[in-house]
Amino acid sequence: MSDLRIAVLGAGVMGADHVARITARISGARVSVVNDYLTEKAQQLAASIPGCRAVADPLEAVADVQVDAVLLASPGPAHDKQLLACLEHRKPVLCEKPLTTDVASALEIVRREAELGAPLIQVGFMRRFDHEYAALKAHIDGGGLGQPLVMHCVHRNPAVPPSFDSSMVVRDSLVHEVDVTRFLFGEEIASIQIVRPSPNPLAPQGLQDPQIAIMKTVSGRHVDVELFVTTGVAYEVRTEVVGERGSAMIGLDVGLVRTSAPGTWGGTIAPGFRERFGQAYDTEVQRWVDAVRSGVNVDGPTAWDGYAATAVCEAGVRALDSGDVVPVELARRDG
Amino acid sequence: MSDLRIAVLGAGVMGADHVARITARISGARVSVVNDYLTEKAQQLAASIPGCRAVADPLEAVADVQVDAVLLASPGPAHDKQLLACLEHRKPVLCEKPLTTDVASALEIVRREAELGAPLIQVGFMRRFDHEYAALKAHIDGGGLGQPLVMHCVHRNPAVPPSFDSSMVVRDSLVHEVDVTRFLFGEEIASIQIVRPSPNPLAPQGLQDPQIAIMKTVSGRHVDVELFVTTGVAYEVRTEVVGERGSAMIGLDVGLVRTSAPGTWGGTIAPGFRERFGQAYDTEVQRWVDAVRSGVNVDGPTAWDGYAATAVCEAGVRALDSGDVVPVELARRDG
Amino acid sequence: MSDLRIAVLGAGVMGADHVARITARISGARVSVVNDYLTEKAQQLAASIPGCRAVADPLEAVADVQVDAVLLASPGPAHDKQLLACLEHRKPVLCEKPLTTDVASALEIVRREAELGAPLIQVGFMRRFDHEYAALKAHIDGGGLGQPLVMHCVHRNPAVPPSFDSSMVVRDSLVHEVDVTRFLFGEEIASIQIVRPSPNPLAPQGLQDPQIAIMKTVSGRHVDVELFVTTGVAYEVRTEVVGERGSAMIGLDVGLVRTSAPGTWGGTIAPGFRERFGQAYDTEVQRWVDAVRSGVNVDGPTAWDGYAATAVCEAGVRALDSGDVVPVELARRDG
Amino acid sequence: MSDLRIAVLGAGVMGADHVARITARISGARVSVVNDYLTEKAQQLAASIPGCRAVADPLEAVADVQVDAVLLASPGPAHDKQLLACLEHRKPVLCEKPLTTDVASALEIVRREAELGAPLIQVGFMRRFDHEYAALKAHIDGGGLGQPLVMHCVHRNPAVPPSFDSSMVVRDSLVHEVDVTRFLFGEEIASIQIVRPSPNPLAPQGLQDPQIAIMKTVSGRHVDVELFVTTGVAYEVRTEVVGERGSAMIGLDVGLVRTSAPGTWGGTIAPGFRERFGQAYDTEVQRWVDAVRSGVNVDGPTAWDGYAATAVCEAGVRALDSGDVVPVELARRDG
Repeated sequence: MSDLRIAVLGAGVMGADHVARITARISGARVSVVNDYLTEKAQQLAASIPGCRAVADPLEAVADVQVDAVLLASPGPAHDKQLLACLEHRKPVLCEKPLTTDVASALEIVRREAELGAPLIQVGFMRRFDHEYAALKAHIDGGGLGQPLVMHCVHRNPAVPPSFDSSMVVRDSLVHEVDVTRFLFGEEIASIQIVRPSPNPLAPQGLQDPQIAIMKTVSGRHVDVELFVTTGVAYEVRTEVVGERGSAMIGLDVGLVRTSAPGTWGGTIAPGFRERFGQAYDTEVQRWVDAVRSGVNVDGPTAWDGYAATAVCEAGVRALDSGDVVPVELARRDG
Repeated sequence: MSDLRIAVLGAGVMGADHVARITARISGARVSVVNDYLTEKAQQLAASIPGCRAVADPLEAVADVQVDAVLLASPGPAHDKQLLACLEHRKPVLCEKPLTTDVASALEIVRREAELGAPLIQVGFMRRFDHEYAALKAHIDGGGLGQPLVMHCVHRNPAVPPSFDSSMVVRDSLVHEVDVTRFLFGEEIASIQIVRPSPNPLAPQGLQDPQIAIMKTVSGRHVDVELFVTTGVAYEVRTEVVGERGSAMIGLDVGLVRTSAPGTWGGTIAPGFRERFGQAYDTEVQRWVDAVRSGVNVDGPTAWDGYAATAVCEAGVRALDSGDVVPVELARRDG
Repeated sequence: MSDLRIAVLGAGVMGADHVARITARISGARVSVVNDYLTEKAQQLAASIPGCRAVADPLEAVADVQVDAVLLASPGPAHDKQLLACLEHRKPVLCEKPLTTDVASALEIVRREAELGAPLIQVGFMRRFDHEYAALKAHIDGGGLGQPLVMHCVHRNPAVPPSFDSSMVVRDSLVHEVDVTRFLFGEEIASIQIVRPSPNPLAPQGLQDPQIAIMKTVSGRHVDVELFVTTGVAYEVRTEVVGERGSAMIGLDVGLVRTSAPGTWGGTIAPGFRERFGQAYDTEVQRWVDAVRSGVNVDGPTAWDGYAATAVCEAGVRALDSGDVVPVELARRDG
Repeated sequence: MSDLRIAVLGAGVMGADHVARITARISGARVSVVNDYLTEKAQQLAASIPGCRAVADPLEAVADVQVDAVLLASPGPAHDKQLLACLEHRKPVLCEKPLTTDVASALEIVRREAELGAPLIQVGFMRRFDHEYAALKAHIDGGGLGQPLVMHCVHRNPAVPPSFDSSMVVRDSLVHEVDVTRFLFGEEIASIQIVRPSPNPLAPQGLQDPQIAIMKTVSGRHVDVELFVTTGVAYEVRTEVVGERGSAMIGLDVGLVRTSAPGTWGGTIAPGFRERFGQAYDTEVQRWVDAVRSGVNVDGPTAWDGYAATAVCEAGVRALDSGDVVPVELARRDG
């Protein structure tokens, strides 16, 4: 079977990472086309990959007959049109989060895909492919905790770009725990509240950091998430689920080597998302490639998962502003 | 110097533990008098200790000239009168929590002691004497975290007596994290909210368990506490403080021995408060005895600490009922 | 660039694993030929891989013009001839350990390859590609321990096949710690002693298990290895290096999820070498494929490393029999 | 019951620690007499303890009718005479290791005590009272490991006094693992070998450090001990027992607080024996005091345990010199 020819839209950090990944570590696929609104960036990237060319227009890249599938790593606002093009041309697409930047367009995508009768869209919530999250999911589903009741999450970044504002903490960081909640508990989130502690003195002026998100699922389970994106420490992502017969925790990073030095012991912590979730991205993309080559097209979070996450984050941004508990309104799943 | 002669009021679980502790492991003190409203219980206990006698009336025990100090382990509603008797007779007293069962009487105790000009009352928040909490406090005070911003607590009991109701989760369990917050952060708590997740199916009918307490300090720091008293697992007390330059955690119980057995590894967790906080109680009582013998009388949490904890818990019970964020009203400290 | 066409010799456990790996997870390579002395086995395996065929004669497989490189997973006694064929046909080869089964033939392979002027042979000591071993090596080389002085290793298997005898503990298990020692310390092993404790009552009659290997390097560093292959527990591989300024440990397996259950906490341990070293094998093969495609041919342990390991193990078997400290005799490296 | 009046012989580090311990933390005992060959030192120490006096002659201190029991913390060479005096005057004695400095005199002590018909001597192997060692012993005795087969020990000190020589590593450091072996396995040690790796460049000239001790018990169990007394790191004492059905480890020190700081995580390690074994000493002395007051006199390692340890260490020193496996010769226990 010949290699899957992938168009990567977006040559930023995520896009370039995916291009390198597919080229160096993924079996059965290659990057045939890259696109970016910065044409030169795309050309440079394309030039570094044998058999790859830059295409200036993303919709043209999608339509290209020598493109079998699309990996969408463009900025969020571009997703809507590009996803519609993928649907139109029946191209399987792995779409980095968010699905789209607002609930209405996300729902529209869900509906348009549903009309086609078979799924084409997978959303890039890579944590579902992380060995630790997968093992936690298996432990829960295997009944090791009995009924899960409560989840505590910690999501810490050492630093964020200057442009990162308070609502992006919700949309870009919390969105992962939103998906983790839905993945692990297998149900929708019903409401969200955001607590605003006194901010970190080292955070940029105007950035509410840390934030504490408090979510309740439709069956009444409680989830709290510490979001802290200017810790200066490391990339720390921890999740603990507490059930009626025990608890389970992942992400208490112990590093690769346990060292002793004068007076102290310990290890290093993953400095960034690449070190923490590199394996998850690799597994995600390999399984997606396999799914597309086998005709299944999707092996992971769906357009609905992307829509639901967007809806929760939109409520979250309102909760951040108001301080209130904000209900999450979702369309009927079959609607 | 001759041994401190202590009257232990209350011969229940805590009282009997203290009698055994003072008799077997504390230097410079002995139990000379025990009292309980169940006279026979006190007599049996007294008979087991050389040189100890049972006294039927607690106030008489306090007044006894052969009693140098009082350890108060009677039921909460009896504290008020017994503490006043201690103040009247100028007897140093180590009072198990709560100071008293309502804010007004607690404040009255604070005021009556203040009129004496020198402290006599220490409140039995033993966690301050736990090696781990003490090391955490030292780490914070030493600047290891920079400015502390957020605290996460877990407080899990394997089981509670049948009489344990939803408000007792606040008054008897959360009260420790209330004191821990005030101890570690060195400031008062300004408000409290209690989230009620779907209850543990294994909890007794009518007991809201787990509960999630969310507190804010006067400077705006955030504290969340998972209270879960029917886990069936073990006694787990964990505290993590997150600051501007790092975080610190205690209570991730790893047990005494790390074992490997077919397919698994791990250890045992402390089954109850005696195993978890036995050292803390020993240190607390030894230091209190030393303080009394040296004339200082108090070396630990004061009557004010007991009053403030009662005030927070009273607000907490209202928050549990209403679901609202309830402010904590405290008297002026010098009032 | 077209995919590297690999002939896999040997369709046993290791060979089949490698075929699956290359097919499913390795970029830039495919299995074009498989061979096994059990012809039917090879045919079945070949039939499951698109574009792959079975070849009955291993030397013919090596010579095949449609084979770019060879992965040698045949039984040890077959290695000698197959490696010579690879050298003759200038085919890069990744040879599972052992290089050959005796010192003389191993040295002959080293010499024959040297005559070619460029390396073709890589030996499959996969631990060098394990993230933990690589990080430990980096920590040592970065000076984190100062001068390394002592190494402690634990090598435990839950079970071994009925045919596994006492000398195979040395040749098949210890051989990995032999290479680890040479890799981490960057020097040869000078002597070896094997201590025989009272055997595990649960081990098969006649199998000396556990064994304790004690090695000294040419500069005088001490290495001890607990070899215990019938633990019934899990696959545990642990290494601690102690240096003049600290120590470092890897392999204290904590599993993926930390769980609490009534009275206990812990996790699961890797049940076998696939779970423990799956990532190492993937990285090893991907890097070897990359090296071959780039014309470098070898990116890892060399034929010399294979020869030296065989020499140490041969001394180890003599030490097992005699109970003495047996010196390791190596040819001159440039000889 | 009145307090046990203890004479502490030796006012060095250990003696002064014991005086402080008994005075501040032990119930039912007080130090009534102190003695040291440096008279002034003893006088200063005595002056700091209410009701305590210095006595110039140790044998007079033992004989003093106002002394109920003796704690022997004098230098090893003084033990012989002082123990005989304790036996003569029927004074219970807690003797810091070593029992005596040579095998013959140690055996003589054992015999003289046996003639008295009831034990008076306890030897200060405090590790038996450490919570971790006690839990490990209980785990083994409870059958958690099946038959124990192998033990690995690590014994690291950050530094030693300038006078510490190679044989003291055996006599003063290894002696603890000798007792631990006998305690955990419940049998005698049959032989000992000492491996001498290239020494730590940071160790004083002439000090063989590290040393690796290899012991075999009479039933054939294997024990290895890394002795490393100039690590510069911390006080690290680790023991792992491997049995037919699993393994168990203690002493993997994780400190009191788990901290995260930029790029790293970890904790502090006990800097010295006081931090590591303070609880063990407290428990040892409290239980000894309780045993003496109850008339049992000994609750822990006996004179025989002291004799056997001395015998193993004497063989160990010969093994250190010769490099050979040296058998341990013990008298018949009933001899």
